[in-house]
Amino acid sequence: MKPGRHNALIDVAGLRVGHHTAVGKGFLTGTTVILAPDDGMVAGVDVRGGGPATRETDLLGPTASVERVHAIVLSGGSAFGTSTGTGVADQLAARRVGLRVGPHPDAVVPLVPGASLFDLGRGGSYTARPDAGFGAAALANALADIDIDIDAGAGADTGTGVPTPGRPRSGVAQGNVGAGTGAVAAGLKAGIGTASVVLPGGVTVAALAAVNAAGSPLDPRSGGLLGEPWLLPGDARDLPVPDEAARARLRAITSPDVTGFDFGSASTTPGRPALHTTLVVVATDATLTKVQCIKMAAVAQNGMARALNPVHTMDDGDIVFGVATAHGPVPDPPAFRQITVEAANAVSRAIVRAMLAAASVDTPAGQWPSWTDVVRGAP
Amino acid sequence: MKPGRHNALIDVAGLRVGHHTAVGKGFLTGTTVILAPDDGMVAGVDVRGGGPATRETDLLGPTASVERVHAIVLSGGSAFGTSTGTGVADQLAARRVGLRVGPHPDAVVPLVPGASLFDLGRGGSYTARPDAGFGAAALANALADIDIDIDAGAGADTGTGVPTPGRPRSGVAQGNVGAGTGAVAAGLKAGIGTASVVLPGGVTVAALAAVNAAGSPLDPRSGGLLGEPWLLPGDARDLPVPDEAARARLRAITSPDVTGFDFGSASTTPGRPALHTTLVVVATDATLTKVQCIKMAAVAQNGMARALNPVHTMDDGDIVFGVATAHGPVPDPPAFRQITVEAANAVSRAIVRAMLAAASVDTPAGQWPSWTDVVRGAP
Repeated sequence: MKPGRHNALIDVAGLRVGHHTAVGKGFLTGTTVILAPDDGMVAGVDVRGGGPATRETDLLGPTASVERVHAIVLSGGSAFGTSTGTGVADQLAARRVGLRVGPHPDAVVPLVPGASLFDLGRGGSYTARPDAGFGAAALANALADIDIDIDAGAGADTGTGVPTPGRPRSGVAQGNVGAGTGAVAAGLKAGIGTASVVLPGGVTVAALAAVNAAGSPLDPRSGGLLGEPWLLPGDARDLPVPDEAARARLRAITSPDVTGFDFGSASTTPGRPALHTTLVVVATDATLTKVQCIKMAAVAQNGMARALNPVHTMDDGDIVFGVATAHGPVPDPPAFRQITVEAANAVSRAIVRAMLAAASVDTPAGQWPSWTDVVRGAP
Repeated sequence: MKPGRHNALIDVAGLRVGHHTAVGKGFLTGTTVILAPDDGMVAGVDVRGGGPATRETDLLGPTASVERVHAIVLSGGSAFGTSTGTGVADQLAARRVGLRVGPHPDAVVPLVPGASLFDLGRGGSYTARPDAGFGAAALANALADIDIDIDAGAGADTGTGVPTPGRPRSGVAQGNVGAGTGAVAAGLKAGIGTASVVLPGGVTVAALAAVNAAGSPLDPRSGGLLGEPWLLPGDARDLPVPDEAARARLRAITSPDVTGFDFGSASTTPGRPALHTTLVVVATDATLTKVQCIKMAAVAQNGMARALNPVHTMDDGDIVFGVATAHGPVPDPPAFRQITVEAANAVSRAIVRAMLAAASVDTPAGQWPSWTDVVRGAP
């Protein structure tokens, strides 16, 4: 099996992804929109973290009547970030995309579930946080096929971790963009990662993760990335292997004094709350029911468990959305099993790719080096 | 952190474990009882597999009124195995242990949740399966501190994989015993494994697993055991490292032709159902609420995900029970997080220990070599 053309969520035909990224002037946050085809996508969700920040997830329950949603919004900003869904819904309604509730052209209700991660204060200000405008901007970028958009009022006062703005789409931008802009894990910079796979029968399965884990992405023995066993050829070029000196540097960064958590022994150091969340969307073009989307999301949580440790604690809001464009075949039970298994693998791969794509940042609130820089001994 | 005295579930003071094992004359199955102190144990459950075989699990829900149960029964026999709970409950009632429902001495209802795994036919007969007597026998062994008990009518006609009967307790027997007697994973013999850890504050956390996975316990790159990164010193002596020849032998055994599942690519081969289930109990002496026991069980599922791949599919009944004797301290939030994290780690450790303790078997239904024998090139 091989990744799809972009090795990204957009390999599921019909899905679009847009990021809005705010860096500088106290900001280090952003928003990512996953946009469905206009007729929506079948969607389910599996919430496993003890501190979720969500919007419109109850309608994804197995007994709720809605089958299809129109976008999913992932954001920084903790509970404040749920406001980004307002911007997405308003703009979709202006385009008359949504659940039709009457004959009038404006009689639509866009259904936009979402979830947010904790990155408050990492850019230097606790009030520099996403709002409805972030959702609208990320949606506009998804519609315009613009890959990266840096907030106009920001970006000038920092020279690190800033992606090149306005680059036209050549896939889905990873690293310090969108909902991953302020994301960190175990004292290391993390961010957005994505991966896809084309199954032998032609069905595509993909994942996008905003990695902001309460846990660590590192193998405690090697200092390598926990999700490496699940990588496909082409997922990671020039993957560095930590030597003893690199392991010592990683241990210093992930130490309990820095992170409030002893990742070596997985024990806790009381007193420092670990406020984090990893947000994931897994997607397929197969024709799944809503309940199958819920199951796909549930199995995909294991991909998070294999690439991060711990996950699903009382202190994170770890969540996986499962979506299906339903343009492809109806899977029989073995094919559905394969879809769920590959969704989990895609999550592990996306998390590794997020760590590899992340760029070191230095803000008034602190420094978060990337795993790659630490392993390579970059200054 | 170090394992407890026995590195087993019984390191949680007050818990007892009894196995009943049936080998030969068509049998390759058994039953394991986890016995609470007479005043019961707080219990919760997290069911993640799509094909569970369970008994009395609804009373473990967050809104069900019962807080404490008196035993948990794990068994082979698929849905038939749920009958073993009858034997446990009847014998506990005869001892007048249970929920008191009236002043008469016999007015007790023992609460015995349980779950079963699929091992039907592996000993040669689809009708040689556990019944209520298996539960009663396993309970009697838990009460009598007898470690291993081989069914009197069986055991004579097979020379492989049979533990020594009647050995007095020196911990908790692992491998081909109790509910793990007929357990296999990826074409390899699996079975019962257990592990414990004593946290810095003195709280003990432990796990017992009956490993009968739909997935594989192997790292697809090395042929080693997936859960190895989570082992503590003392968990595994003389852990062999597969060389290229051993990897070739492992690949032959775990090939899709044999197992119906391609563990290398995690893809499926249609037509061969993978009927399996991994059953787990995690336990602590800390004073947890029922809802905390549910959360501990949920986080502990990640220990299964890290030691087996895939897990939680539509074809298995993967389940974790979480129990607390509640004789120890009430944990604050960081301490509770540590308990959940260590419960997950104990599950990974117990799964590795189950694979290491398993002994190769040869029955009229087939051969299941142990990982250790395959890696070492044993005949």
